Amino acid sequence: MQEKKIPSLSDIREAHHRIENMIHRTPVLTSRSMNKLTGSDLYFKCENFQRSGAFKFLGACNAITQLLANKQVKIVATHSSGNHAGALALAANLHKLQCIVVMPSNSSKIKINAVREYGAKIIFCLPTLQSRESELERVQEQTGASFIHPYNNFDVIAGQGTAALEFIRDCNELDCLIAPVGGGGLLSGTAIAAKSIKPEITVFGAEPKGADDAWRSFKEKRIVPSVNPKTIADGLLTSLSDRTFAAITAFADDILTVSEEGIVLAMQLLQERMKIVVEPSGCVPLAAVLENKPIFNNRKTGIILSGGNIDPEIASGIHT
Amino acid sequence: MQEKKIPSLSDIREAHHRIENMIHRTPVLTSRSMNKLTGSDLYFKCENFQRSGAFKFLGACNAITQLLANKQVKIVATHSSGNHAGALALAANLHKLQCIVVMPSNSSKIKINAVREYGAKIIFCLPTLQSRESELERVQEQTGASFIHPYNNFDVIAGQGTAALEFIRDCNELDCLIAPVGGGGLLSGTAIAAKSIKPEITVFGAEPKGADDAWRSFKEKRIVPSVNPKTIADGLLTSLSDRTFAAITAFADDILTVSEEGIVLAMQLLQERMKIVVEPSGCVPLAAVLENKPIFNNRKTGIILSGGNIDPEIASGIHT
Repeated sequence: MQEKKIPSLSDIREAHHRIENMIHRTPVLTSRSMNKLTGSDLYFKCENFQRSGAFKFLGACNAITQLLANKQVKIVATHSSGNHAGALALAANLHKLQCIVVMPSNSSKIKINAVREYGAKIIFCLPTLQSRESELERVQEQTGASFIHPYNNFDVIAGQGTAALEFIRDCNELDCLIAPVGGGGLLSGTAIAAKSIKPEITVFGAEPKGADDAWRSFKEKRIVPSVNPKTIADGLLTSLSDRTFAAITAFADDILTVSEEGIVLAMQLLQERMKIVVEPSGCVPLAAVLENKPIFNNRKTGIILSGGNIDPEIASGIHT
Repeated sequence: MQEKKIPSLSDIREAHHRIENMIHRTPVLTSRSMNKLTGSDLYFKCENFQRSGAFKFLGACNAITQLLANKQVKIVATHSSGNHAGALALAANLHKLQCIVVMPSNSSKIKINAVREYGAKIIFCLPTLQSRESELERVQEQTGASFIHPYNNFDVIAGQGTAALEFIRDCNELDCLIAPVGGGGLLSGTAIAAKSIKPEITVFGAEPKGADDAWRSFKEKRIVPSVNPKTIADGLLTSLSDRTFAAITAFADDILTVSEEGIVLAMQLLQERMKIVVEPSGCVPLAAVLENKPIFNNRKTGIILSGGNIDPEIASGIHT
């Protein structure tokens, strides 16, 4: 299964065909006041309106559907503190599969509740990668569950690429496209889809300065692990994997890093000017435009708003 | 000008044709989790994404365009503490007209800033209707400005009706439609458009119990003024006028009243489940569904989310 090569545009098109009846076709929003403020011509693909509240549902749906096409599966499992957990739980529920999620005990309440609401079983672990992985191994041994990795999985990457596919179908005149980068699943799928459809488009990853391992990896041409990342963008703490590193170095043009203040400002602007709730990780691409105006000046710039799952307390905290 | 009769569907269609290059074509969103929660099949027309942050821009745009078609105008004026002020300021700005807004001194900062940002001149008055009206009269005498009333104006009403026109074009299978009612401009336009296109549709107004003058007026078949209204829905404090009363009694089916708790719950759900920011007045129709589930059970229910202009402090306060 996992020995396949980097997904192609036709893999992403097939993924879209496979999942389109399960996913939300999210709208693309524009805002004259944001254009005025940035000097760019901005288009926002609202994956914060996606089912489960984040783009992660695209990849989870595609991976589960592909898994079921190839073998008999009754249980899927993953480890995640974030949006992949909720997305996999919902996708499994729709396919009437059992789902087990290993979650660090310090995961946010809103995300724990979402996973429970979608009917998955939660096993809590210590908040370390080692504890997550060993707990997941135990689950796999005991239950025979199929592990669906949050991003180091080509079916997940192909699913994430469907957001850019829809985006370019709706706005084929885009000059550049920006996606946030954590583990790299979204940026991989985005870059493959966009550059394959339209080679002249520029694809950027956007990452917090406080978790700039993807930027370092891209510059050094080797995977530099994320060490003690510190950022409000809780979805972007993870390191690239071999599969996402391969896709990003082959297809993306550059990675831009942003300040914490830029992320908070972007989140405020999205709420106050555009009336939408975007979680901090999803605000990083807009922060990249705000902090690099000359790059995007007068260009048609597509931004993927990756998710909207934010604790209400954090959402209110940004205004104080 | 103001002696015309209640707008017809063709007036609303003409209004749409007239303004469509100036307005945002707002999306219609759906949410399976909201359907599950209410037992209804809900469609949300997002006028919170409209320019100036509220549906008021539709009416202001149409009224100004009509005014200019009929006479030489250099200055428009209004009194408003809320969304009509910002909408008129923006519409005037686009037409390169001067705009003067009489605003009560206790208007919210965010709304004062919006009016200023759109280039209008603000004259502050005492927070009473008498002070607003006498100050406006003085402005008209001194400047010759044309007064554009927030809702007692058939061109404004026709403009507000364009939201329902678009809504039914996008979702022609709607069984019922709900709009909030304050002064009644939106409900008037909505009811005229919807019942004229599709006579079998049911059109509801939704109003806070703490400001239930439209409900009383509808039941008593005479205009009952709003006296000391008390509600978080600051856009719904005003009384019906002769023109909106006439349209609403002729075209709307019923008015539902909702509790303050219902409004706050609706606002939380829209933020947490649908990732959108809706001001309290715009949450009243969803509150009406939540508090009257049997009426809407299994029906395709259209909700007009009328605006998104909320002070960040209020937005955060709802979660505590």
